[in-house]
Amino acid sequence: MDPVPSPPPLAAVRAGVPEHGPAPKYFQVKQKIDAVLDLLGPGVPLPTEREFAERFGVSRMTVRQAIRELRLEGRVQRSGRSTVAAGPKLVQPLTLASYTEGVRRQGRRPGRELIVFERLPADPALAAGLQVEPGAPVFHLERLLLADDERVGLESTYLSATRFPALAEDFDPTTSLYAYLRGVGAVFADADERIETVLASPREVQLIGTSPALPMLLLNRVSRDRDGHPVECVRSLYRGDRFSFTAHLTADDH
Amino acid sequence: MDPVPSPPPLAAVRAGVPEHGPAPKYFQVKQKIDAVLDLLGPGVPLPTEREFAERFGVSRMTVRQAIRELRLEGRVQRSGRSTVAAGPKLVQPLTLASYTEGVRRQGRRPGRELIVFERLPADPALAAGLQVEPGAPVFHLERLLLADDERVGLESTYLSATRFPALAEDFDPTTSLYAYLRGVGAVFADADERIETVLASPREVQLIGTSPALPMLLLNRVSRDRDGHPVECVRSLYRGDRFSFTAHLTADDH
Repeated sequence: MDPVPSPPPLAAVRAGVPEHGPAPKYFQVKQKIDAVLDLLGPGVPLPTEREFAERFGVSRMTVRQAIRELRLEGRVQRSGRSTVAAGPKLVQPLTLASYTEGVRRQGRRPGRELIVFERLPADPALAAGLQVEPGAPVFHLERLLLADDERVGLESTYLSATRFPALAEDFDPTTSLYAYLRGVGAVFADADERIETVLASPREVQLIGTSPALPMLLLNRVSRDRDGHPVECVRSLYRGDRFSFTAHLTADDH
Repeated sequence: MDPVPSPPPLAAVRAGVPEHGPAPKYFQVKQKIDAVLDLLGPGVPLPTEREFAERFGVSRMTVRQAIRELRLEGRVQRSGRSTVAAGPKLVQPLTLASYTEGVRRQGRRPGRELIVFERLPADPALAAGLQVEPGAPVFHLERLLLADDERVGLESTYLSATRFPALAEDFDPTTSLYAYLRGVGAVFADADERIETVLASPREVQLIGTSPALPMLLLNRVSRDRDGHPVECVRSLYRGDRFSFTAHLTADDH
């Protein structure tokens, strides 16, 4: 299913000097439940908090903290009223290829849902990114990213309205923007991308349907054409519990 | 200071349909404090929780929650007993270059501190990564990553002890491993890297000195030589509040 060579996720070292005393109780419980998850497999419901509490001889609060961290890390997820073992994270390659292509390569069904399509004046950061004058007209397209109908991210794309004047009339925002841009002659030659982790804002929580304060992966990208001119600025937010990214590095990257 | 072209960090859209009602109080306070931070500049102490609470007409709990999120995101940090505005995140390029080179390029002073240097039998995941037999002897080198003496990450490197038998005798673990490996003829040709966000474990919290449950950036890397044979498997954990990563993507990456 996954054609991308992906480094094996190595377990953290648990032993080794220096020792800092025993781990907190909730963390010991978390590790025990984590070991159970590998045996259960995706979608299988976990025992209840009370059952875990009795089995491990700890309070339900302690179990709750352990399960909360496992949920923030994408090891378990809610399904209706129960908590189930989660599948592996999606592995998205960092390439010029679009979200659509990346998700499809993993055998998942990509989708997009339009949230905002607007025309606005470029603020200073955006103007610098797109190399337009501050205040120049810019299209902003905000879309939810879906994988098999699950909401997994939120993406804002900014393009110069002077360069792509027909975008509002000609482009269907539920389809691939990259396919449209290729159609009007914009060839992507290279891009710079920045990755970091941020917390979801309340609006993003509402739109993506995550827990508040879930760690998200934030990607900021500037894509350029063959003349080195910026084509788009993109701000993509991916659920940290559902996504990982891979990069293939070569000696030429030095 | 930063020679890496980095996409501008774009602000999230605050307005736009659909609206989901007003943001929670703590989030409004967070945004107000966030705006103040840009005026203060790195290292400048914030007003106290009580002062913020009085100014914004909210409880100290509300201010505390806002400041907690700003700390997890690296916008503020503790300094002694006060909370100060933080500097920008370090921007580390995803290249074959080492941590040492990446930090130096940003005008910061890199450092490493040895935590573990041990010889152990390869478990199945590690054996697959290094392409050795399960149980084959492997060196494990765990080091704290420092930038200007600040602890910013924790890195575990695994190498075949059969391939690098003299490592334990000849290598000084406070120096650059890549320089040593080059010296014994291992040329890095390419690598696959995987990035995701995880929560710091209690041991990692102790070693790195972060808050519990701080979102971290986890990088797993397999580096290969010109024959396509793995040289090392690396598990690096970087403070999510202090680090971002950049990648330069070209059409050849397709």
